[in-house]
Amino acid sequence: MGCKVFIMQCFVGFWDYETPKIMVVKNMTLGIIYRIVQLLIVTYFTWYVFISQKAYQESETGPESFIYTKMEGAAISGDTVQDTVEYSRPPEGGDVISAILRKEVTPNQKQGVCAEHFAVPKANCTKDSDCIPGRTDMSGNGQRTGRCVQYYNFTFKTCEIKSWCPIEEFAAIRELELKEAINFTVLIKNTIHFPKFRVAKSNVMRKRSKYYLQSCHYNEVTDIYCPNFKLGYIAEQAGEKFSELCKTGGVIGVFINWNCNLDLDPSECKPKYSFRRLDLRKNHASSGYNYRFAKYYSENGTEVRTMIKAFGMRIDVIVHGQAGKFSIIPTIINMVTALTSVGIVSFLCDWILLTFIDKDEVYSEKKFDEICKHSSHTPDMDITMNAEAEPTPLRKLPDPLF
Amino acid sequence: MGCKVFIMQCFVGFWDYETPKIMVVKNMTLGIIYRIVQLLIVTYFTWYVFISQKAYQESETGPESFIYTKMEGAAISGDTVQDTVEYSRPPEGGDVISAILRKEVTPNQKQGVCAEHFAVPKANCTKDSDCIPGRTDMSGNGQRTGRCVQYYNFTFKTCEIKSWCPIEEFAAIRELELKEAINFTVLIKNTIHFPKFRVAKSNVMRKRSKYYLQSCHYNEVTDIYCPNFKLGYIAEQAGEKFSELCKTGGVIGVFINWNCNLDLDPSECKPKYSFRRLDLRKNHASSGYNYRFAKYYSENGTEVRTMIKAFGMRIDVIVHGQAGKFSIIPTIINMVTALTSVGIVSFLCDWILLTFIDKDEVYSEKKFDEICKHSSHTPDMDITMNAEAEPTPLRKLPDPLF
Amino acid sequence: MGCKVFIMQCFVGFWDYETPKIMVVKNMTLGIIYRIVQLLIVTYFTWYVFISQKAYQESETGPESFIYTKMEGAAISGDTVQDTVEYSRPPEGGDVISAILRKEVTPNQKQGVCAEHFAVPKANCTKDSDCIPGRTDMSGNGQRTGRCVQYYNFTFKTCEIKSWCPIEEFAAIRELELKEAINFTVLIKNTIHFPKFRVAKSNVMRKRSKYYLQSCHYNEVTDIYCPNFKLGYIAEQAGEKFSELCKTGGVIGVFINWNCNLDLDPSECKPKYSFRRLDLRKNHASSGYNYRFAKYYSENGTEVRTMIKAFGMRIDVIVHGQAGKFSIIPTIINMVTALTSVGIVSFLCDWILLTFIDKDEVYSEKKFDEICKHSSHTPDMDITMNAEAEPTPLRKLPDPLF
Repeated sequence: MGCKVFIMQCFVGFWDYETPKIMVVKNMTLGIIYRIVQLLIVTYFTWYVFISQKAYQESETGPESFIYTKMEGAAISGDTVQDTVEYSRPPEGGDVISAILRKEVTPNQKQGVCAEHFAVPKANCTKDSDCIPGRTDMSGNGQRTGRCVQYYNFTFKTCEIKSWCPIEEFAAIRELELKEAINFTVLIKNTIHFPKFRVAKSNVMRKRSKYYLQSCHYNEVTDIYCPNFKLGYIAEQAGEKFSELCKTGGVIGVFINWNCNLDLDPSECKPKYSFRRLDLRKNHASSGYNYRFAKYYSENGTEVRTMIKAFGMRIDVIVHGQAGKFSIIPTIINMVTALTSVGIVSFLCDWILLTFIDKDEVYSEKKFDEICKHSSHTPDMDITMNAEAEPTPLRKLPDPLF
Repeated sequence: MGCKVFIMQCFVGFWDYETPKIMVVKNMTLGIIYRIVQLLIVTYFTWYVFISQKAYQESETGPESFIYTKMEGAAISGDTVQDTVEYSRPPEGGDVISAILRKEVTPNQKQGVCAEHFAVPKANCTKDSDCIPGRTDMSGNGQRTGRCVQYYNFTFKTCEIKSWCPIEEFAAIRELELKEAINFTVLIKNTIHFPKFRVAKSNVMRKRSKYYLQSCHYNEVTDIYCPNFKLGYIAEQAGEKFSELCKTGGVIGVFINWNCNLDLDPSECKPKYSFRRLDLRKNHASSGYNYRFAKYYSENGTEVRTMIKAFGMRIDVIVHGQAGKFSIIPTIINMVTALTSVGIVSFLCDWILLTFIDKDEVYSEKKFDEICKHSSHTPDMDITMNAEAEPTPLRKLPDPLF
Repeated sequence: MGCKVFIMQCFVGFWDYETPKIMVVKNMTLGIIYRIVQLLIVTYFTWYVFISQKAYQESETGPESFIYTKMEGAAISGDTVQDTVEYSRPPEGGDVISAILRKEVTPNQKQGVCAEHFAVPKANCTKDSDCIPGRTDMSGNGQRTGRCVQYYNFTFKTCEIKSWCPIEEFAAIRELELKEAINFTVLIKNTIHFPKFRVAKSNVMRKRSKYYLQSCHYNEVTDIYCPNFKLGYIAEQAGEKFSELCKTGGVIGVFINWNCNLDLDPSECKPKYSFRRLDLRKNHASSGYNYRFAKYYSENGTEVRTMIKAFGMRIDVIVHGQAGKFSIIPTIINMVTALTSVGIVSFLCDWILLTFIDKDEVYSEKKFDEICKHSSHTPDMDITMNAEAEPTPLRKLPDPLF
C-alpha cells in the first residue's frame, strides 16, 4: 500500500467515531449483581476516596515551621533561687528546650591528682605496682599515675589518677528536687507556612492583648490559642508523674498537628496538641534524661569548675501539618480512576455470566464471534458457521488473565 | 463439566486473541467532538503531566542535608568590642544561629533578698502582713520572705523576695544597638545528597580559592556559589528593616531550594535562596526574638552572675530539595494512565450519540444487542426480534453509572 | 420525550447487564504476541510492583524520632585532663553533638587596645596618618584608633585597634591533638514511632542489663542493639582517617535507617547504620569543622576571657524510616491498575492485527461495523451494505490516538 493511500485513509477515517458494540443481557440475577458491585465501588470512591481522603483536593504536607520556646517561672530549691536563666537550657529557644529539675553538683574541681573511684575496674590497689602508669580506663575519670593512694578520707586505697579533682562520684552533692517546677510554664510559639497555598498560620491568636499572652494557660477547650503550657500539664498529658520526672529526668514530645482544609473557613485550621514520652520508660536499663555541664571560675589564675549533672525534662517540639484545597486536576484524575475501576466489574460479571448463568451457551455465542481465517473468505460464511454450522461449540470461557 | 474438558478448553482457547467489536459511526459532529476532547486530554497529559510535572522522571525529595554556619565581623558597641565569640550563639554552627544585636545587662546579681518589682501582682505593700511568706508569683522574680521593704532607692515599699538580687527590672542597663552588625556576614555552607541517585551538591564552588571564599559576598547573579551573606542583605531580602530588628529582635528563615533535573548538565542544579521573616510581625502582641543567659563569676567564693537579655536576629536555615531523572517505569505507568484516560472520552461521546444524535435509533440498535434468554432459543430468532419484531423499541439510554 | 417515559426507560434498563461484544481471532502468531506481552505486564506487576515495591502494603515514612546523644571517655592532652564536660558540646544531647579534638587557646583576653594583625588589609603602617580612626575591617579584629604602634615584640608597626587583646593571631597557643579520643564513645539512643501503625522501636535492646549498655560497643553482627559507637569506628566507617579529623575537624553523618515490614515478626525491624562525611573533603578550600567559644573570668572586676578555637568531630544523627503493613485498599487499587494495564495490550495487538496480519480485510470487516446514517434506514440494509455492497472497503486502520 502506498503512502498516499495511507494518508487518505487516515484522513477519511479520522472523523469517524468508534464505540464498542454492546450485548445487553436481560438477566435479573446478573443485573442485580452488576449493580450491587458497581454500587460498592461507587460508594467506596465517593465515601472513602472523595469524602474521607479528600481526593478532590490538591494537598501539601510538611509545611515550613518556626518554633520559639521560652520557659518562665522561679522557685526556691533548698537555699538557692532557680530562675529561667538557671534551669532552662539551651537559652536560644529552638525546638528542643530542657528544664533542670534536679542537680548533682561537684564544686571546686581543679586539674590535679586524686584517687580513682573504687568501682572502676582494677582501681582498687594495695601497692603502687597494682597501678599501671598511663593507663586510662574508658569508664574511669582519668589517667593513672602509677601510685596507690588513700581513697579520700576512707581507709582503703585506690590508684591515683590525673583528673579533675575531687572526682564526681566522691564529691557530688545531691541537691533537692525542684518540685515547684510543676507550675513553671513553657511558651511554645509555632508559625507554619504552606508555600504552595501561600497560607500562614500561628498558634498565637493575633487579636489578643500582650497581657492575655503573659497570663493565660493552654486549655484545649477555652484557650486553644494560648501557647503557655505548664510543665505539670505536659507531664500529665503524656501520662507521666512529674515527681518521677524530677528523679530520673525524661524527654517528652510535644506534637503540634495542623490539619487544614482550606476550602473551609480559615479559622477551622487549628493546632492540635498531643504529648508523648519519647525516651524509654522506667524499669528499663537506660531510661531518663541527664547531661553534664560546668561553670568555670578563676582562682588566683587557676581554672576551677563547678560540674553539674543535671536531671531534667527535655521538651522536643515536633510539628506535623497538611493542607488541602480543591483543585480540578486531582479531581479529574481520581474520577477517571473511579470510572475505570467501575468498569472492572464487567470482568467479574462476565465470568459469572459465562460460567454460571450461560447454560445454553446463548450468551457466549452472541458475545464471542470466532474467526478462523483459513476457513472463511467471505464474512457471510463466517456468520453462518458461527450460528449454525457449529451445533455444540465449546463454551467460551472468560479470559483467565483479563 | 469435567475437569479434563475444562483444561482442554482452556488450552484451546488460550492462544486466541480477543478484541472488542467496534461500531464505526460516520457522523461528522460526533467525530469532531470526539477528536477535540481527545486532543484536550492528550494535550493535558503531554503538557502538564509529562512536560510540566516531568512524569517521565523518577523523583526524590528530602535530600540528606548538612548545614554549617559561622558569623564573621567585629564592631564597637558603646565602649565594648563585639566579636563573633561575643555576639554569635550557639557557637557550634548548626542550622540555627543567632547574632545578638542589643543587650539589656544586669550585672553583679547574687543570691539574696531584695525588693520585688512593683508591677508584679500584689507586690506593693505598706506593712509586713501584706506579704505572704513563701508565696511565689509565676510572673515574679522569687519567693516572698514576708517582709515589706523599701523599693531600692525609691520612697515606696514592695514585698521582699529571695531571689537573684538586684532584680532585672530595676538594675538592667540597656546597651546600645549594634547597628554595625548590618555589615557582619554569616557563612552558610550547605551540602545535599540524594541517596537514590548518588548525587551530592554543595553551595560552595569547588574550584574557587580560599581567598575568594573569605572575601566574597553572595549575589544572585554574579556570585551564586559564594555562601557569605551580609546580615543586612538577609534582612532586606526578607523585607525587614535592620534597625527594627536591632530593637525587637526577629527570626528570619533562609530557605535553600535545590531543584535538580539530573537529565540536564549537573551544573544546572543550583541552589536558590529565599528569605522570609518567621516570627510574627510588629504591631503584634508577641513579636520579636530575645532570650536570657548569664555569665558566672566567683567573688570570694560567692557565685555572681551577669544576666543578659539578648535581642537578636536568629537565622533558621531550611533546606528543600528534589531531584528527578528519566526512568522507564514511571514513564510507562503514566502513559498507561494517559491512554486509559483518553478511553474515557468514549463515555461522553456515547452519551451524546445516544441522547442527541440518534434520533432514529439506528445507532442504539446496532450498538446494543439485547438478549432475553427466555424468549430466544436460537441466536437467529434473537436477531430477527431485534431488527424487526420490535418496531418501536425503547431507545437504549447510556448506562447512568458507567 | 417526556420525563415519565425517561424514568420508565431508566427503570426497565437498569437491571440489564451490558458487556462488550468480542471478536475472537484464531491466529496463533497474534495469540502468542498477545500472551507474551500480557505475561510481561503481569510479571512486572507481580514482581516489581507487588513483591519488590510491596504495593499491597499501606506505608508510612518519616516516623517521629527521638535522639539522645552523650559522649564518654577521658584522656590526658598535654598537661590537662579532657573529660566529657570539657570536650563535648553542646551538653544537652540532641541530634548534633561534637567532640573537640584540638584547641587553639588564646588566654587572658581583655577589652583594650593593641596592634592589629599584619595580614589584615591596610593594617601595616609607618605613621599614624596611615590608620583611619574608626575604620573597622570585616576580616580584622576591631576598630582602628588612628595610631600606628609596634606589633607586639616585633620590629614592624601596624595600626592600633580597640579589641579583645591580645589578638588571637598573635597570642593563640596551639594545644596537642587529643588522639586518645579515637577510643571515646558516643551513645546514640534513638526511638522511633509510626503513629499510623502505633508501632514504636528503639535501637537499645530492652532485655539487656544496665551493665551491658555501659560496656558494649556496637558491632553490626554481634551487637546490633548496642548504641555505643567508638569515635574511631565512626571515622573508619565513613572512610576517614581519625588523625586527619584531629587536624582539621570534620562533620560525619550517622544515618540510622529503619525499614520495617510489619507483616513479618517485629524483631525483623532492625536499625541499619551508615556513616558518611558531610562537610567537604580535604584539598578543598573550606573543609573541616571548627568553631570559637570563650570562658569568662573576672579579674578585680574586669572581664577576662579565654578564647578557644575548637577543631572537632561533629556528629549529625539523621534518622530515616519507613514501615509497611498489608492493607486491602492499596491492594485493590494496584490490582485494578494492573488489570487496566493488561488491557492496554489490546491496543498493541489490534494494531498488529489490522496492519500486518489482516491481509484480506477479514478481521477489520468483522471488527468494525460502519454505519452511515443517511444511507440506511433499516439495520438490515446496513448489514447488507457492509457485507456485500462495498466489495473493496478501505481497510480500517487502528485509531492513531487510542
